[in-house]
Amino acid sequence: MSDTSPLRPTRRTRLDSYVDRYAARTQGMKASEIRALFAVASRPEVVSLAGGMPNISALPIDAVAETLGDLTRSNGAMALQYGSGQGDPRLREQICDVMALEGISAHPDDVVVTVGSQQAVDLVTRIFCDPGDVVICEAPSYVGALGVFHAYECDVVHVEMDGQGLVPRSLEQAIVAVAAAGRRSKFLYTIPNFHNPAGVTLSAQRRTQILDICAQADLLVLEDNPYGLLGFDAEPMRAMRADDPAHVIYLGSFSKTFAPGFRVGWVLAPHAVREKLVLAQESATLCPPTFSQLAVSAYLEHHDWRGQIKSFNEMYRERRDSMLAALDEFMPAGASWTVPGGGFYVWVTLPEGVDSKTMLPRAVTSRVAYVPGTAFYADGFGSRSLRLSYCHPTPDRIREGVRRLAGVISADLELRETFGTTSATLTRGDERPHPDLE
Amino acid sequence: MSDTSPLRPTRRTRLDSYVDRYAARTQGMKASEIRALFAVASRPEVVSLAGGMPNISALPIDAVAETLGDLTRSNGAMALQYGSGQGDPRLREQICDVMALEGISAHPDDVVVTVGSQQAVDLVTRIFCDPGDVVICEAPSYVGALGVFHAYECDVVHVEMDGQGLVPRSLEQAIVAVAAAGRRSKFLYTIPNFHNPAGVTLSAQRRTQILDICAQADLLVLEDNPYGLLGFDAEPMRAMRADDPAHVIYLGSFSKTFAPGFRVGWVLAPHAVREKLVLAQESATLCPPTFSQLAVSAYLEHHDWRGQIKSFNEMYRERRDSMLAALDEFMPAGASWTVPGGGFYVWVTLPEGVDSKTMLPRAVTSRVAYVPGTAFYADGFGSRSLRLSYCHPTPDRIREGVRRLAGVISADLELRETFGTTSATLTRGDERPHPDLE
Repeated sequence: MSDTSPLRPTRRTRLDSYVDRYAARTQGMKASEIRALFAVASRPEVVSLAGGMPNISALPIDAVAETLGDLTRSNGAMALQYGSGQGDPRLREQICDVMALEGISAHPDDVVVTVGSQQAVDLVTRIFCDPGDVVICEAPSYVGALGVFHAYECDVVHVEMDGQGLVPRSLEQAIVAVAAAGRRSKFLYTIPNFHNPAGVTLSAQRRTQILDICAQADLLVLEDNPYGLLGFDAEPMRAMRADDPAHVIYLGSFSKTFAPGFRVGWVLAPHAVREKLVLAQESATLCPPTFSQLAVSAYLEHHDWRGQIKSFNEMYRERRDSMLAALDEFMPAGASWTVPGGGFYVWVTLPEGVDSKTMLPRAVTSRVAYVPGTAFYADGFGSRSLRLSYCHPTPDRIREGVRRLAGVISADLELRETFGTTSATLTRGDERPHPDLE
Repeated sequence: MSDTSPLRPTRRTRLDSYVDRYAARTQGMKASEIRALFAVASRPEVVSLAGGMPNISALPIDAVAETLGDLTRSNGAMALQYGSGQGDPRLREQICDVMALEGISAHPDDVVVTVGSQQAVDLVTRIFCDPGDVVICEAPSYVGALGVFHAYECDVVHVEMDGQGLVPRSLEQAIVAVAAAGRRSKFLYTIPNFHNPAGVTLSAQRRTQILDICAQADLLVLEDNPYGLLGFDAEPMRAMRADDPAHVIYLGSFSKTFAPGFRVGWVLAPHAVREKLVLAQESATLCPPTFSQLAVSAYLEHHDWRGQIKSFNEMYRERRDSMLAALDEFMPAGASWTVPGGGFYVWVTLPEGVDSKTMLPRAVTSRVAYVPGTAFYADGFGSRSLRLSYCHPTPDRIREGVRRLAGVISADLELRETFGTTSATLTRGDERPHPDLE
């Protein structure tokens, strides 16, 4: 062997031979490191407190089946055809009726139907954000929205939350800091009701304060509200959009109040913004699925959808109560958690020194799954937290899942006492569970 | 009045107060100048030869209704729930069966389901194209794809077509010219079968030549094939993907072979590319609509979908024949047109000096609508051409529409003889009809 021959190839083997061709934005599209683990977590013996799939078992399936058959027979020529990019006019009227429950007075012409509210986040980001623009988000924030902001090469600046939601003072500081750095904030992304993942709700007083802060800074608010009608104890809160139509872009969804399989969400936006969103929607899909839209429209027309939401809420309340009781009963000292008034999620802060991400494989081995807190931060924080969802398993399974989880945490604490602090990982959060996980 | 007071405000009134906030890419999202005209064109007295809506009246609606009802009753818990970002596994198997008709041998794991093939174009562009990248397209090309390329701030370089489709020599020249300019071509976008809008089909010999050219230049091919099974006279052509799985990304759709209202299309891509596409799909929509996917899957399972495509083709052939006969009978000397062997479209070249875009208002006044050729070019060409679609109106209406159109063209020619040449407009082509136009 001559000494010019390398002992091993100097270029490593390329698994992806297309790697030189991808757009820069693909660097913001990461597969979850823990995805493989979630595949294991979907086994029936594992209690998954990880997924956010709504529990649609309470839906009157036979009646829905009849409605869909009737729709096809009576209006198939329309339901099976292309529709407008903005969405079905009758559905947009009905969407305005739904939003009226939260104090919103809107015109159907300012509504754009989207492929779930995920696509709404995508389209709003598409029309507003250039690479390097800043989006201000709660800490923690919805993992699917963070994924969109990464994919559009935005920088996420987090602002603090407490038991009453987004902290106004923290928002003010973030706005000042971004401006001082010569950066541009395009909008505040916020989930005011039954926050995913934090499980808290923004108080009425803070809504006013935050709207004032944003109006003063001329900052748009992206109010993401999939859970607003899923409150357990009180009437729906007044939407932020209800009080500031010019600064707030509002996102809604039928995924939690009816069924996610149709993928029908919407954006309510100021008129000029709505025009841009329609162009973006046409470019993205030509039009959202007509059948889905007319299915939702027929459901709203022919079913007691408010009564159905009440049934959902009773079911979810029972599950939340089961989770909170189990947390009280089993969690070791040093752990704390939020007490959601609705929605799907409890946010747990672990005793100091326990790392939710490194603990996950042990949890799955102990037949319980959750989402590590780091998934919900753009900056690697969250390793002491985790998200538990109570929407899907039965109350008994929830109790058993929390019991197992508490056991894993306690074992971790014991290890730590024996061998010293386990090191916390700081990784960029892409620990997103697959949407079809329980 | 002091002389420092302006006589009128120095800042003009902003109709869109959000204009300073939009992303740069929104400049590539333009509303059609002639959109208002198309609103008029949708009146029943106007024969619209403009829209590309498939004629789904031949579908057995009652049987489809029953299938959808059964699907909901028997599998509602799955059909109404979130699914995977890649799409339903059974549907992806069936998609492979459909593609086998065109000689494609593919694994379901390399298929990604999309919200119509429009979203497939969007996702492929999203993962490959940075602003300023070049996409090579036929001249003319599909208006919806050009819209996506503009929205991603790509530059479109057109290559010539003739009666046998894309001209290989023109492609070679384009590749050389782009490279010589120090630019990067990300892919060739092509519609080999029954081209929209040109109505021509790429010959078998040219397919081989073009694959060779692209392989040599290491250029990917985006083969968009919504019409491949809609041939009137022969068996489906062999897909380009069938002969070069590594360089061809293939797009398909059920919008023309079944129904567009479900918005189910797909991408078949090399494995590494497929992985990126799934991440992009999850960011865009979480998952494509489950109900739509299971509806298409059940339709393929329980209906004679091949027989249905034959019925569609008989209907479309009759309409094409009607259009070609009427063009022969009525068109003035100097006009020429393509003779499609399938699909929806005829491409008409007008006598010299007639401008299809400036003529459109007169055509609509004469109760016939078409799409001006400029819509299908990124560079303002096409003013002497127009696209006629025969997919939706009845044969009699098609004949009457062509008669009216010929009358408008003849009147234009007379005017020109009397007053001299009308000036051709050179405008960027965004004259896209609304998808729900007839």
